[in-house]
Amino acid sequence: MSLHAVILAGGSGTRFWPLSRAARPKQFLALATDRALIVETWQRALPLCTPGRIWVVCGPSHVEAVRTALPALPERHLIVEQAARNTAPAIGLAAVRVLAEDPDATLIVLPSDHHIARPDAFQAALEAAARASQSGDLVTIGIRPTRPETGYGYLRRGPAREGGSFAVEAFVEKPDAATAARYLADPAYAWNAGIFVFRADALLDALERHLPEVRAGLTGDFATLPSISIDYGVMEPEAQSTRRIALVPGDFGWSDVGSFAALPEVRTLDARGNAVAGDALLVDSDDCVVLSEGGRLIAAVGVEGLCIIDAGDVVLVVPKDRAQDVRAVVDALKAQRRTDKL
Amino acid sequence: MSLHAVILAGGSGTRFWPLSRAARPKQFLALATDRALIVETWQRALPLCTPGRIWVVCGPSHVEAVRTALPALPERHLIVEQAARNTAPAIGLAAVRVLAEDPDATLIVLPSDHHIARPDAFQAALEAAARASQSGDLVTIGIRPTRPETGYGYLRRGPAREGGSFAVEAFVEKPDAATAARYLADPAYAWNAGIFVFRADALLDALERHLPEVRAGLTGDFATLPSISIDYGVMEPEAQSTRRIALVPGDFGWSDVGSFAALPEVRTLDARGNAVAGDALLVDSDDCVVLSEGGRLIAAVGVEGLCIIDAGDVVLVVPKDRAQDVRAVVDALKAQRRTDKL
Repeated sequence: MSLHAVILAGGSGTRFWPLSRAARPKQFLALATDRALIVETWQRALPLCTPGRIWVVCGPSHVEAVRTALPALPERHLIVEQAARNTAPAIGLAAVRVLAEDPDATLIVLPSDHHIARPDAFQAALEAAARASQSGDLVTIGIRPTRPETGYGYLRRGPAREGGSFAVEAFVEKPDAATAARYLADPAYAWNAGIFVFRADALLDALERHLPEVRAGLTGDFATLPSISIDYGVMEPEAQSTRRIALVPGDFGWSDVGSFAALPEVRTLDARGNAVAGDALLVDSDDCVVLSEGGRLIAAVGVEGLCIIDAGDVVLVVPKDRAQDVRAVVDALKAQRRTDKL
Repeated sequence: MSLHAVILAGGSGTRFWPLSRAARPKQFLALATDRALIVETWQRALPLCTPGRIWVVCGPSHVEAVRTALPALPERHLIVEQAARNTAPAIGLAAVRVLAEDPDATLIVLPSDHHIARPDAFQAALEAAARASQSGDLVTIGIRPTRPETGYGYLRRGPAREGGSFAVEAFVEKPDAATAARYLADPAYAWNAGIFVFRADALLDALERHLPEVRAGLTGDFATLPSISIDYGVMEPEAQSTRRIALVPGDFGWSDVGSFAALPEVRTLDARGNAVAGDALLVDSDDCVVLSEGGRLIAAVGVEGLCIIDAGDVVLVVPKDRAQDVRAVVDALKAQRRTDKL
C-alpha cells in the first residue's frame, strides 16, 4: 500500500467568530489543545504516512496560514483550489495531483478541523480502512455515536465483510430527536464524519461514473465546477449502484468541534465543568467556556452555561445553547460593513 | 443665608469593579451620563452656591482625581481627610474649615456618587431645606420611595412644620421585603439619602452634644477619630433628644447608583431594555448592561439580564441579580496579590 494523507483545509465558517476570521478559519485555531486543529491533524497523519506523503487542499487566502502552521509540508503538496467547490471537486483535484506523483496511491482523506481524543485507535481504524480499500472499495469511517445527535448525517451499515469492514446500506439524513435516540441504541448506525480512504484511481473512476463533468473539469478551470459534496455526489450514488462502498467502524473520541458549546467535549474541565483558557477568574460559575486570547483578565460571577470569548479586539458572550447563532452577529457586522471584525 | 456645598468624595468601594479601581472609585466614573458622577454633583450645586462656595472632602489618594474632575474648585476648598472615618468626622472637618472662612455658613452636604434625574426639583428641595435650617435645625432630605427597597434605611416623618418641612420621628433600619412594601404605601416613610442641610455652627453644636471626642479631635490628628456615620452618631441621637431634626421631602429622580444592576434606572435604554455604552452589538438580548471602555466591540447573542463590563484590561460578566457579588472577584484578586487589577 502506498498511503497518502489528504488534509482538506478549504473550510471557512462563522461558528467560532470572533476567534475565527476570514483569514484565519477554525482549522487554524487551537481549540482543543495548545496546537491548531490542522496541526493536530498533521500529527495524526504522520504515523500513517511520512511528511513527504501528506497533502493539503486549501483556498488562495489560506496558503500562508497553511505554510506557517505546517512548515514540513512539501511545497508541491499544497494544492490550491481557486474557488471553494465543496469536497467532491477538492478530493478529485487531490486525486489527480497525487496520482501524477504516485500511480499506486491510496488516499486518506482527513478534515482539517476535527479533534480526536485517542490517536492510537484512530491510527488502527485508518489502517484497517486502508487495507479494506485495496479491493477498490471506497471506505468511509463510521463513528460510534455517543449521544443522540440531530446535527449529523448517519450511515447504516449492512453485512460484515472480510477484514473488519461492513457494507454500507444507506446514507441517512439528519434525524429528529426520537430517531436519533433510536440510532444511538442500534449498532448498525454510525456518524458520518467525512473521513474516507480509497485508492486514488478508484475515486476518479467513481467520479467519472457519477460526476463526469467534475471528473472532466479537474484539469481545467476549477472555478467552473459545481459545488457538491463527495457524500452526496459520489458515496451515496455509489452505494446505490455498484455498492462498492465499505464502512470501517471508528471509536476514537472523535469530535467535529462544531461550536464553542462543543469545547467541553475536547478540553480539560475544572471542578465545576468550566473549559478555561487564558487569564480567567470564575467565581460561583458552572459549565462555562471562557477563552481569553487578548491577554486580559476575564472575570465572571454567578454565571452558568455561558461562553465568554475574548479575541483581542472583540468580546463575545453567548449561552452555550445559542452558540450556533453567532452567525447572526457576523451577518450584522457584514451589513454594517465592519470588515475589520470579520 | 450663606450657602456652601460640601461634596463628600471620600468613598471607595468595589461594586463597580473593574471600572472602579483603588485610584478611581465610583464617584469618578461616568455611570449615568457622559460626565463623572462627581462632576454631575458639582453641576447640581452651582445653582445653589457659586463655585467659590463649593467644598470637597476626599482622601489623600484621590486629590489628583478631584482636581482633574473639578478644575474650578478653589484650591483651599479641597479638604483632605488623612484617613477614612465615615461621614460624622468628614462633615465636622468641613464645618470647621467653612466656618473659619464664613461664620454665617449653611452647609449643603452632598454625596458625590449619586445621580439625580430632575435637577430643578432637586434645587427647589434643597432651597426649602436651606430655609428650614436657618432655625438651627439639622435638615435631612427624605426621598419619596419608588419601589419596596430593602437596601436602604428609612426616615419616618412626624407632624408638618412651617415652610414645608416635617419633624422626624425615627430613623428606621433596613426593612424586610414585607415591611418595605408597607413603607412604600405609607407617605410617612422616606428613603434616607445622605443629603443634609444645616448651619455649620448648629452641626458643630450637635457634634459637641453627641460625639464630643469627634468635635474635640477635628483640629487635631484626624486619623485618631472614630469611624462613625452622621446618621448614627448625630442625627439619630439628636432626633431622640433635642428633636431639632427636620425632614424636607424630595422627589427628584434620585438614585444612589448602587451597582451595575442600577444602571438601567439612570441611563437611556434601547427598545429591549438594554443599557449600552461604547461599541456593542446585541442580538436577541434583553435587559442587559453593556459598558465598553476598552474600545473593543462587545457582541452578545441571546443573553438576558446580564452585565458585561469591559474596563480595558479586565472583562467582567455577571448577572444583574448577582451584581452585589462582584466583591468576591476583588477579594480573590487581593488574595492573589494581583494589585494591577485592583
